[in-house]
Parts: sequence; C-alpha cells; structure tokens
Amino acid sequence: MQINENYQKLPGSYLFSEIARRTAAYSAANPDKTLIRLGIGDVTRPLPQAVLEAMHRAVDEMGAAETFRGYGPEQGYDFLRRAIVEQDYLPLGVCLEEDEVFVSDGAKSDCGNIGDLFGPDNVVAVCDPVYPVYVDTNAMAGRAGDYCARSGKWSKLRYMPCTAENGFTPALPEEKVDIIYLCFPNNPTGAVATREQLAAWVKYANEQDALILYDSAYEAFITQPDVPHSIYEIEGAKTCAIEFRSFSKTAGFTGTRCAYTVVPRQLQRGGAGLNGMWNRRQCTKFNGVPYVIQRAAEAVYTPEGRRQIQENISYYQRNAQLIYQGLKGAGLTVSGGINSPYIWCKTPDGLGSWEFFDRLLERANVVTTPGAGFGPSGEGYIRLTAFGEYRATQEAVERVCAVL
Amino acid sequence: MQINENYQKLPGSYLFSEIARRTAAYSAANPDKTLIRLGIGDVTRPLPQAVLEAMHRAVDEMGAAETFRGYGPEQGYDFLRRAIVEQDYLPLGVCLEEDEVFVSDGAKSDCGNIGDLFGPDNVVAVCDPVYPVYVDTNAMAGRAGDYCARSGKWSKLRYMPCTAENGFTPALPEEKVDIIYLCFPNNPTGAVATREQLAAWVKYANEQDALILYDSAYEAFITQPDVPHSIYEIEGAKTCAIEFRSFSKTAGFTGTRCAYTVVPRQLQRGGAGLNGMWNRRQCTKFNGVPYVIQRAAEAVYTPEGRRQIQENISYYQRNAQLIYQGLKGAGLTVSGGINSPYIWCKTPDGLGSWEFFDRLLERANVVTTPGAGFGPSGEGYIRLTAFGEYRATQEAVERVCAVL
Repeated sequence: MQINENYQKLPGSYLFSEIARRTAAYSAANPDKTLIRLGIGDVTRPLPQAVLEAMHRAVDEMGAAETFRGYGPEQGYDFLRRAIVEQDYLPLGVCLEEDEVFVSDGAKSDCGNIGDLFGPDNVVAVCDPVYPVYVDTNAMAGRAGDYCARSGKWSKLRYMPCTAENGFTPALPEEKVDIIYLCFPNNPTGAVATREQLAAWVKYANEQDALILYDSAYEAFITQPDVPHSIYEIEGAKTCAIEFRSFSKTAGFTGTRCAYTVVPRQLQRGGAGLNGMWNRRQCTKFNGVPYVIQRAAEAVYTPEGRRQIQENISYYQRNAQLIYQGLKGAGLTVSGGINSPYIWCKTPDGLGSWEFFDRLLERANVVTTPGAGFGPSGEGYIRLTAFGEYRATQEAVERVCAVL
Repeated sequence: MQINENYQKLPGSYLFSEIARRTAAYSAANPDKTLIRLGIGDVTRPLPQAVLEAMHRAVDEMGAAETFRGYGPEQGYDFLRRAIVEQDYLPLGVCLEEDEVFVSDGAKSDCGNIGDLFGPDNVVAVCDPVYPVYVDTNAMAGRAGDYCARSGKWSKLRYMPCTAENGFTPALPEEKVDIIYLCFPNNPTGAVATREQLAAWVKYANEQDALILYDSAYEAFITQPDVPHSIYEIEGAKTCAIEFRSFSKTAGFTGTRCAYTVVPRQLQRGGAGLNGMWNRRQCTKFNGVPYVIQRAAEAVYTPEGRRQIQENISYYQRNAQLIYQGLKGAGLTVSGGINSPYIWCKTPDGLGSWEFFDRLLERANVVTTPGAGFGPSGEGYIRLTAFGEYRATQEAVERVCAVL
C-alpha cells in the first residue's frame, strides 16, 4: 500500500502550532504573567443578536417532525444562496446566479479542496508572504515539488514577492503560470489591490489561460471607497476567477463555520466547466452545512443583522487604528490596518521575525505572528491582528511601545 | 492550465440525482398522486430533546463574550472526543486515545477526503454493490482507471461481488489489493459480517500490508448480540484499519452534520503514521465542526440523550421489520433489515432494478432505490429504507404488496 509521499516533504509543524508551543512554554515558565494575544486572527466579539435568534428558531424547527430538516442540498439552501447573490454581489454591480454560489463550512476547506479539480503539473504562483494553506495544500497534491529548508521555498512554486518596494502587491509573473492565488485585503500584510492592478491580473489570466483563486475573506474591512470588494467587479473576471468568502471575520463565525465559494458558469478550462466540476466534487465529498448554521448565516443579511455585524467590524477597525497609530507613533514602520484587520510591522534593530516575536512575548507578554512564518519575504516583519478586546489591545500597544 | 481529467471520466449523474429526476417527472405528470419515499436513506424523526437543549445552551454561550468560542481544535473538542472514546468504544472492550478520534462534518466527507493520504497507484477493492462515494472519490483521484459503461465497472478497481450465494459478504480477494472498503452493517444490502469474517479480513490486511477503510455508520442498528459493532473488536485491527462513524443515522444528524473517524496511532504504512498524516490533512484543509454542533453531539451521550436516540432507533427498527416481513409475506425475496435500516429486495419476474423502480413509482407511488445504482451486482435488486414515518411506511408496504 502506497501512501501519498508528498506529505513527508512537508516541513515541521504549522505556523500557529509553533506559536502555540512557544507561548505555552513561556506561560508554563512564567505563570504570573498575563499574555495578550494579537497573533492568530480569531475574533472575540460574541455572535450578533439577530444570528443568535435565528439559530434558536432553527434549533426549535429541528425539534418538530413537521419542520425537521434532514439532508440539505450539498451546495447550500436556496435562501442563503439568494441572500448572498442579492446582498453581497448585486450592490457591487455583479450579477451572479444562485447556482454559481456554493455554501461551505469554511474558506480554508474550500481553498484546500478546490485543488481536487486541478491536474498535478500546473505551475502555481503564490504571493510571498502568503497564507500557508495555499502552499501546503499544493504541496500535499504534489504541485509544489520539493521543499528547501535553507530558502524556505518549494521547488515548483512561483513566489511573487510582496515587499515595501511594491507596496505589498505583487508584479505580474514574467513567465507563464497556470494557477494564481491572490488574497485582498491581504493576509498577512493587510495590503489591498487597486482596480487597475486587479484588471491587469484578469487580463493576464484570460490571455494566458490561467486561473485566479481569489480570497476575499477580509473584504468587509475595506474602508476606502475605491478599493474593489470582489474580483468580479473587474470585467472579464468571470472567465478566469474563483472567489472565496467567509462569514468568519465578517460576522464572527470562526467557531460557527460558514463560508462560500463562487464558481462562475462561464469559467471553462481544458474544455470543462469548473462550476460543474466543483458541483460534482461537493456532491461527492461533502454533505452541506448544518441547517441551523445556514439559518444563522442568513440572519446576517437581515437589517438588524447587518447593523449588528457592522458594529463588530467597526469595533475591530478601531483596534486596527489603535495598533497602526500606536506603533507608528513609537517609530515603527507599519502598513495595512486601513482596509484590513491586519497590521504588518517591520521589525526594529534588524531583528529577525522570530527574534522580535520572542522579544515581544518575553518583554511585553504580547503574542504576535512572525512574518517569516508566511514565507521568505515575510522575514523582518510581524503581523498583529485587530480581533482582540479593545482594552486588551490598548494595553498591548502600550506594552509593545514600552519595550522598543 | 490543466484540469483534473479524471472528472471527465465520471459517468452521468449521481444515483440520487437520477432518482430525484424520475420522481420529479412522475410527480409533475401526476400531481394528484401522493408519493411515499423509501429511497434515499434520510431520517425523519426530529432531534432528541437532550440534543435540542444542548444546542440552545451552546447558542447562548456564543452570545456572551465570556463564553463565546472562536476557532476550535480542527480535530474536535476534547469533551466530544472523550465521550466517543469512553462511551462508543470502551464498552466494546476497545481502548482508544482521544487523539485517535477526529470529529468531522460527515462520514461522506471523511470517506472522500481520506483518499488525500494515498498514492495514485494503489489497487482498490470495493464491494459490489457499494456506496457510490467510495468509487467516485477514487475515480476522481485517478485510482479507478477508466469507466466502461457496458460493464458498469472501472478498469482498475477490484469488485468483490456480494450476492445471495455468499450471503452478501465478500470473499477475500485472490490477488493482492492495497486498499479495501468495507461497510457493515452494509449499505445497500443491510448484511453484516461475523466476527470470524472480519478477523479474516484483518489477517489478510496485516499480512498483505493492505489498509481497511471500515464504514460502521449503521452500527447502532445491530440487534444481534454476536455481531461486531467496530472493526477494532477484532484483534490486530489497529494496525490495518481506519473506522468511519456518524451521528447521522444514530441520532438523526443528517441535517445537523457531525461524524468522526478513528485513525489508530499504531497504523503505519510506507514508513509513515496515518494518524499524523490525517491530523496534518485536517489541520490544513479543515477548521473543525461548529461548537454548537459538537455540544449537540455530546448530548447524545447523556443518559437522557442515549434513551431518546434509542427511542428513535427503535422506531426505525420497527419500520424495518414491517418492510421485511411485509415483502417477505408477499412472496418477495428479502434480506437485511435485522441489523440494519436497509432492506435488500430481489426484483420479481426477472425485472431489472430500474424497471422495478419505475413500476413501484408508477403503480404504487413508492420511491425506492434501484440496486443497479450501487454497482453491477446490485442489478435485480432494490433497496428500501426504514427511515420514513411509521404510518407512511405501513401504507407503502401495503401499496407495494398490492401491485406485485
């Protein structure tokens, strides 16, 4: 029996496991210290009232034979797909059909599972730094080649550096690539792409027969009016892009689990429609999101739900401003934070990412995320997240500034 | 850009889509007829009270900052893994560690996704008839070869006929195979394997370095005391078997979505531990089951929960007896139904599966599942399920008997 040998090429443990390990070790050795976590991007605000009420109602429905729900459609209930089409996309001027939307348990699942549709020999381009799931899932499928611990790179991936010099948005690749992962507002840098930059990517992909996998999980944090929320705001994107979205950061669903993926019907590659392929994949390997959870997600689109989630988003945006302005005021070089819950901070004194991580952990008792964990070009940076409590975030910023 | 060309080899649509299509067409042409559905294996009883109460409590927890839960462990919360280990396995004399249990959104997802861990060149053996997910997911991964519409078989799969002659339990393969899918109590035939039969499989797998993927989603329906509920009741199974279980049929969770997979630490293949590989897969491509749903599943293990789910299981078991005895009394040849919610019925008059399906649809207005949809050896059979309402099941049996 032959295992998938690509798994054995995967280096060490997942970034957040290593952070958890170092944090736990420090806590064990210093039980009197109170840590503030601005590391992993997990929300802290409770679910909005409208969502809670919808879940309670749905639980009651599951308790009566007349309203009980068994297997739902693998693609999601119509009521939720309709709300997504009408309220997330129509206001952007994007016209989608309901069967172009696939409800799922998470953008992480979809970003990983979408790889099922692709052959092994595609050339895959990723931003550097990058959300590790894009890289690791391609490595598992054999599309990344071999890992080099010295460079921190996989032999077959094409890395697109996102640096201070290019404003953390990558240049088009010089050679032909087949699959391109883009995430804007970006995790981890918090950068956004302009309409013109996205239009250049769409043109490239359509001309080169490439596919864009567009992760817009953080679009709700955009504050500047000219920044696109969806790749489909760009003409031609429906023939070259799949878009991933999530209720995790928008509505506090990290522990409630609901997301969706848009696969336009017009999207064809290799003579096949990717919408039909993804539908087949989901029907065969997935059985839909719990009814109660889909009702919870639907409630996000009610007037009360929209107002309540906006309150939470504003709360986190205030944190983002606090971190951004605080660190900048202390003389650090920061970016992101304006259209994003993430602040990308250059390490001082020429410190490495993990060195600055350790210094902040040990001296300020603040947990961050080392930029190097997101790829070679993340070296020399840390990521801070705005998802904490306001007072704790305030104290964390004070503590960090005090130890610089 | 290269797609996964294996998708294009998949024949037609999924079995249940075709049933839905024929049923919808008949209903549209005969709007005055009331159909009774004994086809797809979906439960109809509402969720037990203990489960509802646990969900309501968990929803409330999500509404307060102090008790709100964000990202949970990808593998499932300890409270649920502990309940599984202590209440599902310990009473069987099977000792598992909590980190050998992985909570998920469904056995279908896990049965499909587990293929991520295997190389492309394994020889895969499936029962015939078989739950289509095992076949289709291997076809998608390129392990099935090419499909032959005439034989209904894939060129690289090894089919193990399950027929009346062998009591619907397959013989050991004569040639070496690498991965073996077993499902007992069986979907679709309702057959079970004896302890001796399973022991022969475990011996074969350990000797041949093969892997058994054991689906025991229906174990709660076993009524005979000597029938094993888990493959791990067989000595040596921990070094050769992965087991899939689900709350879907046990606790009515088809629309609530919770299941689990056991990957023993001792299970090694190709020098790698499959427990660690599955853990890596789940951490990279999955973000856990909703907190509210895991609390719902936990409630199944309370004394009230256990009593309430047993009431529902007994309700369905009564239906199974009704169908089994009714059809047998009418002169049909039936099996299953005793340790299973499925009744496997030979078609009369030499009819094909789809012919008998159509006759029952048109003359008795009863929806069944044609055995041929589960594989070539299912031809000449239909599957009936015990998950309907009692009165409707009673009427369906009467209607079927009247048109024979």
